[in-house]
Amino acid sequence: MQDSVPPAVARSAIRVPARLPIVLDRSSGLPLPAQLAAALREAIDATTLRPGEHVPATRELARRLGISRGVVVSAYEQLIAEGYLAAVHGRGTQVNPELPAAQPAAARTAAVPSGPAATGEASARAELRDPDRRTAAPLAPGVPITDTVVGPAWRAAWRAAAARVDAMAPPLGAPELRTEIADHLRRMRATARDPRDVLVTAGTRDGLGLLLTALGGAGGREIVVGVEDPGLPSLRGVVSRYGARVVALPADEHGLDTARLPDGVLDVVIVTPSHQYPLGGSLPLPRRRELLAWARRTGVVIVEDDYDSELRYTGSPLPTLAALDDPVGGTVVLLGTFSRTVAPALSAGYLLAPEGLRSLIEPVRRELGGPVSSTVQAALAAYLASGELRRHTARMLRRYAARRDAVSERLVGASALRVRPMDGGLHAVLEFTAGGASRQDAVLARTRAEGLGAEALGNYWQRSDAGDGMSGLVIGMGGSDDGEFDRALVRLRAILDGR
Amino acid sequence: MQDSVPPAVARSAIRVPARLPIVLDRSSGLPLPAQLAAALREAIDATTLRPGEHVPATRELARRLGISRGVVVSAYEQLIAEGYLAAVHGRGTQVNPELPAAQPAAARTAAVPSGPAATGEASARAELRDPDRRTAAPLAPGVPITDTVVGPAWRAAWRAAAARVDAMAPPLGAPELRTEIADHLRRMRATARDPRDVLVTAGTRDGLGLLLTALGGAGGREIVVGVEDPGLPSLRGVVSRYGARVVALPADEHGLDTARLPDGVLDVVIVTPSHQYPLGGSLPLPRRRELLAWARRTGVVIVEDDYDSELRYTGSPLPTLAALDDPVGGTVVLLGTFSRTVAPALSAGYLLAPEGLRSLIEPVRRELGGPVSSTVQAALAAYLASGELRRHTARMLRRYAARRDAVSERLVGASALRVRPMDGGLHAVLEFTAGGASRQDAVLARTRAEGLGAEALGNYWQRSDAGDGMSGLVIGMGGSDDGEFDRALVRLRAILDGR
Repeated sequence: MQDSVPPAVARSAIRVPARLPIVLDRSSGLPLPAQLAAALREAIDATTLRPGEHVPATRELARRLGISRGVVVSAYEQLIAEGYLAAVHGRGTQVNPELPAAQPAAARTAAVPSGPAATGEASARAELRDPDRRTAAPLAPGVPITDTVVGPAWRAAWRAAAARVDAMAPPLGAPELRTEIADHLRRMRATARDPRDVLVTAGTRDGLGLLLTALGGAGGREIVVGVEDPGLPSLRGVVSRYGARVVALPADEHGLDTARLPDGVLDVVIVTPSHQYPLGGSLPLPRRRELLAWARRTGVVIVEDDYDSELRYTGSPLPTLAALDDPVGGTVVLLGTFSRTVAPALSAGYLLAPEGLRSLIEPVRRELGGPVSSTVQAALAAYLASGELRRHTARMLRRYAARRDAVSERLVGASALRVRPMDGGLHAVLEFTAGGASRQDAVLARTRAEGLGAEALGNYWQRSDAGDGMSGLVIGMGGSDDGEFDRALVRLRAILDGR
Repeated sequence: MQDSVPPAVARSAIRVPARLPIVLDRSSGLPLPAQLAAALREAIDATTLRPGEHVPATRELARRLGISRGVVVSAYEQLIAEGYLAAVHGRGTQVNPELPAAQPAAARTAAVPSGPAATGEASARAELRDPDRRTAAPLAPGVPITDTVVGPAWRAAWRAAAARVDAMAPPLGAPELRTEIADHLRRMRATARDPRDVLVTAGTRDGLGLLLTALGGAGGREIVVGVEDPGLPSLRGVVSRYGARVVALPADEHGLDTARLPDGVLDVVIVTPSHQYPLGGSLPLPRRRELLAWARRTGVVIVEDDYDSELRYTGSPLPTLAALDDPVGGTVVLLGTFSRTVAPALSAGYLLAPEGLRSLIEPVRRELGGPVSSTVQAALAAYLASGELRRHTARMLRRYAARRDAVSERLVGASALRVRPMDGGLHAVLEFTAGGASRQDAVLARTRAEGLGAEALGNYWQRSDAGDGMSGLVIGMGGSDDGEFDRALVRLRAILDGR
């Protein structure tokens, strides 16, 4: 720190806005160093202070703010530890020059929960530094439009939920939420089941982990899980983390190829019957029946990943596989989520299981504890009861349909590219009809460089010999405002055209 | 249903309050059957309608409310499915006579997250039926006093949090919450660490599961976990559920006996150095040093279960083991929780790990997803930043100290009973100096029958040959109002006196 430099010189040298927007409140209960650190963090996040810029010398800032120099030293040390600031030997303290300047570029390296996972220390650092990390890149798959979730019903639901603190959250879920979810499944998914069959989860991955833990038991026997290929890479990762073995099962645009199911190998099969991910097809009824008959015969548990079926813009959603299953001795565990209809950040979903499987799952949940705060559960129950989730979903459907049209319009006539038909959901698949994997790599390098957030279609296949040579892009249609989305499409078109 | 019975006869026969408090709102968006079911559920929960009482015939209730009979039939069917109502052949529909009438008796069967787990179908049914299940029995261990959590700062924190919906929650935790938790650890636990070392969890069990998953890796190697004996049965259960093997390590009233640690067997050791559970001692400094040196030598990971150290009513809390550890290459993973300082129902806690272990844990968390809603994280960060958690904790400390005194006063002179000294926390240990296990069983049968919620001290030992013959009770000092707590103590004294 440059405390030996006289204040007048320092002020001209540091090139910092003469008046940083720092307001300290001695009556707030928060210690002054924490308040000062928060104000500086905010100024850096808002780019009032930019990477590489010097901050005032500790002595000078203390004088300006009328506080002791120790407070400033303490705040600077905190921000250096956090990576916001960097001490430069002999040249004072500056905003860390390595801080990502453009937010989309920083967001790009973040792990998108439902797309192929991006991990590593770089994103860990970005995550703590960049408060805007939680807004995704404009074409990142799996991110819904969230800009109109907050409204009177949403606020009222949370206000009511925060007016009470329960001592303990029931591990299987709050009764009123389980009842509302059962109602939601009946209305939106034509699946009429007892609220007792519903367990509240922190989302699809939590539900899957709970099931795998229950099936694994204490003995540590290896569970073998079949997944659709192509399919969601993140679910394959979850299966592996729980110590289970992944087996790729061939799927086509209609979903799982039920004629090629191996006997005697699998414990669990994960399917997306309502909307195959990523190709978008719906599992035809004969295959559904074949799958259920096979599961009954072999004792295999079917996990129905019902990730976005509420968001269908043509026709009405198909009923679930679970609706065809026996609610007592059945084999289908449905995993539902509010991450597409509300937001992944809500971290809430549900698991629907027949009684027999519930008797395995429930003791595990009681022992491990429910992960969802009772405040979240109360708010979500009130939000569902108000009918606002249905209205919000209907509004979002119109917006996704309009964005889907925008994708077609912006990309029409692009060379050797096919926008695959899609009945719903919040992603689109752009298939290259020529150019193959090398074109896919080249395009992806550019979309990444520009922070657009698209994913390579080829990455959704697990078997290296599979994919029928399919290449292209999977793009998301949520996660940003309409103008930003359209600008991202225009950029994407330019990249596809080689401009 | 008794629709063939004329309304006048039915009305006199059904012995139901003439005017049920049912208000239906056609403009609410919620369908009428769901509204009616909710109103009846509420009436049953409030015991306006009692188990065994008949509800009005569908036709009569439809006429009274001016709605179609189909609405009533649908609501009744729903409530029959949920277990609130029961159809009696030829005698209409009544409130399920098997519904638990007295709430404490129902709560008694519920799984208390931090006491020995009570499981089974009975509590599953109670959980869905009984909205008061989430208030615990008055002497159940592990349940804090929650009646003054809700206040202006609490409401303001949630209001601010609900004003924004993030698309994605950062899986390691919201940066502002990680920073606040680091600050909390520095102030309350004399543990100064970088916010990057803090990961947000859904609580102690979630943090432990995350660590075990990270250590297990995809290979499925069996992890061996040493636990204090006596110690928390629920943590032993979590370890087993994650496929790890539990080894009991002898502990005394000062904590883990570090002179008797086996070499070459263990991967992880879970300790409660600040406040041995349940006996209450603090691990002496020589043992702390011995444990850390042993862990460094053997590469064993030490899990510091820091479950209630903020709640210490004499002296200042001891620093954590983590504070003695190396923040880069260290071996201590601290698990903290807001379940004692706020409520278990918040489902929020944290994990503090040195950089080396973080590099194993973080990729797992990214892949499995963070379980804590970004709304909860934002609210908790604001609540911590307001300083209100510290003020609340200070208030609660005074109340627990007063309750601790009440325990001594109410039980003074009870025959062959010693109230073990305790420096803090929200439980008390009542040791029988005569009578042994048979007295313990007899007393416990009575406390259970009266729904008091105490636990058997003997249950905290895992080795059947251990415990030095200790018997007695572990009682909680939270979870109910002051009057109810005192009445529970009076009842307990009567039971101990054999009255």
